[in-house]
Amino acid sequence: MKYAVLGTGTVGRTVADRLAELGHEVTVGTRDPGATLARTEPDGMGNPPYAAWAEEHPDVALATFAEAAAAADVVVHAGSGVAALDILAAAGADNLAGKVLVDISNPLDFSAGFPPTLFVKDTDSLGEQVQRAFPEARVVKTLNTLTAGLMVRPGSLPEASTVFVSGDDAEAKAVVTAMLTEFGHTDVIDLGDITTARGTEMLLPVWLRLMGSLGTATFNFKIVR
Amino acid sequence: MKYAVLGTGTVGRTVADRLAELGHEVTVGTRDPGATLARTEPDGMGNPPYAAWAEEHPDVALATFAEAAAAADVVVHAGSGVAALDILAAAGADNLAGKVLVDISNPLDFSAGFPPTLFVKDTDSLGEQVQRAFPEARVVKTLNTLTAGLMVRPGSLPEASTVFVSGDDAEAKAVVTAMLTEFGHTDVIDLGDITTARGTEMLLPVWLRLMGSLGTATFNFKIVR
Repeated sequence: MKYAVLGTGTVGRTVADRLAELGHEVTVGTRDPGATLARTEPDGMGNPPYAAWAEEHPDVALATFAEAAAAADVVVHAGSGVAALDILAAAGADNLAGKVLVDISNPLDFSAGFPPTLFVKDTDSLGEQVQRAFPEARVVKTLNTLTAGLMVRPGSLPEASTVFVSGDDAEAKAVVTAMLTEFGHTDVIDLGDITTARGTEMLLPVWLRLMGSLGTATFNFKIVR
Repeated sequence: MKYAVLGTGTVGRTVADRLAELGHEVTVGTRDPGATLARTEPDGMGNPPYAAWAEEHPDVALATFAEAAAAADVVVHAGSGVAALDILAAAGADNLAGKVLVDISNPLDFSAGFPPTLFVKDTDSLGEQVQRAFPEARVVKTLNTLTAGLMVRPGSLPEASTVFVSGDDAEAKAVVTAMLTEFGHTDVIDLGDITTARGTEMLLPVWLRLMGSLGTATFNFKIVR
């Protein structure tokens, strides 16, 4: 499968690395590949500059958002929630049409500090906003409820836990569920249409408090039933 | 321990029954005990009339909100979220002062149908509203993230799952954690102060979607770490 991973931060790198390890053809998308490779300082999250990461991942290509999306079967949006619609607009509606579009992002608003609020919630969701903005894309919201490392290697927890998929297109959810299974997920719950992304996006406030209380991001929700 | 359980619906009856079974002195509080006992029809949730339930629970007393709260060491608010402040006002600030006040309710607004929205969220919570309205009560938000039967008998699930406590008073949280342990909970996570109730109240949207997707309310969150 040919994947585009839009975003060069922690989530983008983690997902791209894992997909390449699994044998997929992966292109990371960024606004300006030249500028991305020219950076020599760690990013805002303390990650080493992308060029250093790229050197260790010669099997992962780098291209513009549009080039990466155009060439891909599946597009993964791994940017921040606040940038999601901009990034996808740069990728181009034509390049997303008919494609499975995996949205991992959360509508976190850090403008008033910690804890962040959600810039959409309750009566709408970022997943729905993306689907409305790109009606020909087959949007699946998933993986926004756990830390990057666990998204792609859930087996590093002491027991199986749960991830969710939300989307209007059953076939797209099947494609994404297969990807999640490759990552190691054994309990994928299909919550229903894209409006159910409201529920998983609204998990972030308790996730953030749990991170504070437990002193680690290495945890995940499991639905015991 | 002397408990007041405010509310005669499913949650109130379930918690009162379990506390009495555990040997505690329990008084259910209602607005008008005479009217509550006079009802002969099932309630809005299909529960049998309270009088029928009371006949099977001769060890559980019925009194006004204020009488029940005045006599109790611990007051459990088991009414609906939309009625919480009214019910607690009827119980009386003086009768709640210094007491552990367990708030189970959720800020669900069904006025626009299903799925309900939350009438407070993100930047405030019902738990905080209750604490602000009754500053001398020692409010602990808990048990609002699972169905009534599992609140008091979590062992009926195939494995241990998680409940949360949020509150400003460490001693009150210890009292509530002891109650939860009596119920059978083995994983109680202290999320922090009462503002962390925002997180657990915002779990309701995904809880409701999970109920729809799984076709049952008999499930619970477990934090795997």
